[in-house]
Amino acid sequence: MPLISHRNLKDFVKDIFIASGSKPEEADLVAEYLVKANLAGVDSHGIIRIPDYVQMVEEGRMHPNVAPKIVRDRGAMATVDAGLGYGQVAAKMAMELAMKKAREYGIGTVSVFNCNHAGRIAEYPILAAENGMIGLLMVKAFGPIVAPWGGKARILSTSPMSFAIPAKTEPPIVADFATSMSAEGKIRVKNARGEKIPFGWVLNSEGKPTDNPADLYNGGALLTFGESKGYALNLLMESVGAALSGAGILDVFAGSNGVFAQAINIEFFSDVDEFKSNVDKMIKTIRASPPADGVKEVLIPGDPEMRETRKRMADGINVEDKTWDRVVAVAVKYHVAVPQTAPSPASAPH
Amino acid sequence: MPLISHRNLKDFVKDIFIASGSKPEEADLVAEYLVKANLAGVDSHGIIRIPDYVQMVEEGRMHPNVAPKIVRDRGAMATVDAGLGYGQVAAKMAMELAMKKAREYGIGTVSVFNCNHAGRIAEYPILAAENGMIGLLMVKAFGPIVAPWGGKARILSTSPMSFAIPAKTEPPIVADFATSMSAEGKIRVKNARGEKIPFGWVLNSEGKPTDNPADLYNGGALLTFGESKGYALNLLMESVGAALSGAGILDVFAGSNGVFAQAINIEFFSDVDEFKSNVDKMIKTIRASPPADGVKEVLIPGDPEMRETRKRMADGINVEDKTWDRVVAVAVKYHVAVPQTAPSPASAPH
Repeated sequence: MPLISHRNLKDFVKDIFIASGSKPEEADLVAEYLVKANLAGVDSHGIIRIPDYVQMVEEGRMHPNVAPKIVRDRGAMATVDAGLGYGQVAAKMAMELAMKKAREYGIGTVSVFNCNHAGRIAEYPILAAENGMIGLLMVKAFGPIVAPWGGKARILSTSPMSFAIPAKTEPPIVADFATSMSAEGKIRVKNARGEKIPFGWVLNSEGKPTDNPADLYNGGALLTFGESKGYALNLLMESVGAALSGAGILDVFAGSNGVFAQAINIEFFSDVDEFKSNVDKMIKTIRASPPADGVKEVLIPGDPEMRETRKRMADGINVEDKTWDRVVAVAVKYHVAVPQTAPSPASAPH
Repeated sequence: MPLISHRNLKDFVKDIFIASGSKPEEADLVAEYLVKANLAGVDSHGIIRIPDYVQMVEEGRMHPNVAPKIVRDRGAMATVDAGLGYGQVAAKMAMELAMKKAREYGIGTVSVFNCNHAGRIAEYPILAAENGMIGLLMVKAFGPIVAPWGGKARILSTSPMSFAIPAKTEPPIVADFATSMSAEGKIRVKNARGEKIPFGWVLNSEGKPTDNPADLYNGGALLTFGESKGYALNLLMESVGAALSGAGILDVFAGSNGVFAQAINIEFFSDVDEFKSNVDKMIKTIRASPPADGVKEVLIPGDPEMRETRKRMADGINVEDKTWDRVVAVAVKYHVAVPQTAPSPASAPH
């Protein structure tokens, strides 16, 4: 398992995207967000995506250097056509536009259609939180792989939502989760390792609960998180992520991701310092509270990713051999120099 | 168990609120929403609340005939001081103001502080949906009774959220749920009946999972729904429901409910008819899909309440003896005439 510093990794990834057709600014942004996901420990949304992205570009399903186009702009809202460019470019532009609206109207909302995968979506609400706003992103993901609650057919997607709430001395509260019980990638890994999954994640093709991850790939479907509650949230993601922008609904009618970005400008509602102090109070009260049986400490949403980021910034990022080999293959194809890596402590001989 | 028509029940409830100090318009609104909750089968938010409401008025904790006051009004947002009047009055006013903003700016958001219990909160998003908008309500409820995920202390509340999405030929999608695994009322009922609760709803005072509902009342705490995901949503309710309005955060610092109402004006984003047709397509696709093992049919959020409403509008509302007796006691105290009821079929002798 090669170990590489986040700086070297980012430079490498940026070079790959430049070689595959992106201008430096776009390559820099996509590289930054992918490597940030790896730093945060969200490896499923990190450089593992590079081969897919490059393949989509090669097949004409993703277009480098497309500037997202504002097709409606009125009051506190706008609608954006991402033109099937990099989703990162469109989602960042959408949140920045929502923040601009929020500076004028107190709240800003931008919906995006023709949008590709936007990476780890927490990036965009975090951008709002860094600017003293509450950021919210609702995404209609590509699917279909999730069953409606009570059903067994693959109709819905793993559509995620994310939000970030700024605090004063504490880091922001950051949530980022799929409205399905599990990401598909997790079940893929369990299946590859021959491990069981908990009941409640997947229904088999007969609509029965199963602990066998292979059942998902034999006509089964993922379940929504939180039973009927997550199901309802999933339909909200479809509605505001896809239908609201005019993109359609469900994969059969829409055909791309959709993004709903919202920024709430706290200073319009109350004193910003007071708001942040109150969030601090909540965070500190929770941190100081006693853990449940078998738990070491009570965490705030965003804590695990923040800690992992600190750790990996210091120690470097371990990349799985298989992922590294696939990324290197893309680099070789595009004549990009592959940086030196060290063997990671985990894979070094004892 | 007395059976009463919704019309007679509403007139009776309205008379009680007039007698306890509300002007006819306020009494009519609160009576309408409480009876609508009973019609929908959400009896926990129906006339069972009357004795509490009247007691709060008597004790000066709730003030009849308070007009909610707009304290900030700027662009697409406003902040409202509910003045500890009836929560129904403030929440309806907040959603109406959000809709007015949304007609001008595409989206409108109103946060409310000093707010009392607002009844079944689905009413307010439904109001938006009836006007062709997406309605969203996030509420910081009074507590504290819910543990943060990983913790065991009662710090958070059952803070609910609700949203409604209009369709074309189908009724709107309506979601309304607590961010805790269960409402406290449900556990109270199980405890009274000596029944078990599922593991995953409550932790006992030692922070261990329990199926004994009595543990909640012996130092235990409710869990959030969907594990860490519902926990994150609960913190969002605290932040936008309470802190955003300047009311504070958590019960120790805030001291009342807080409401965050948002209306999204679809016509600013896309063609309204096209949006509604797309939502129809999603609903019809889901309804036509095969149910999971042991399930009769696949439902849309809002279906159970809509069906129950149709049924109870035709058949009348069965009120539990204990609830009826308590409501009648309030009526007698305030010299309000008690309407005739029929014995319900369930309680009639066989």
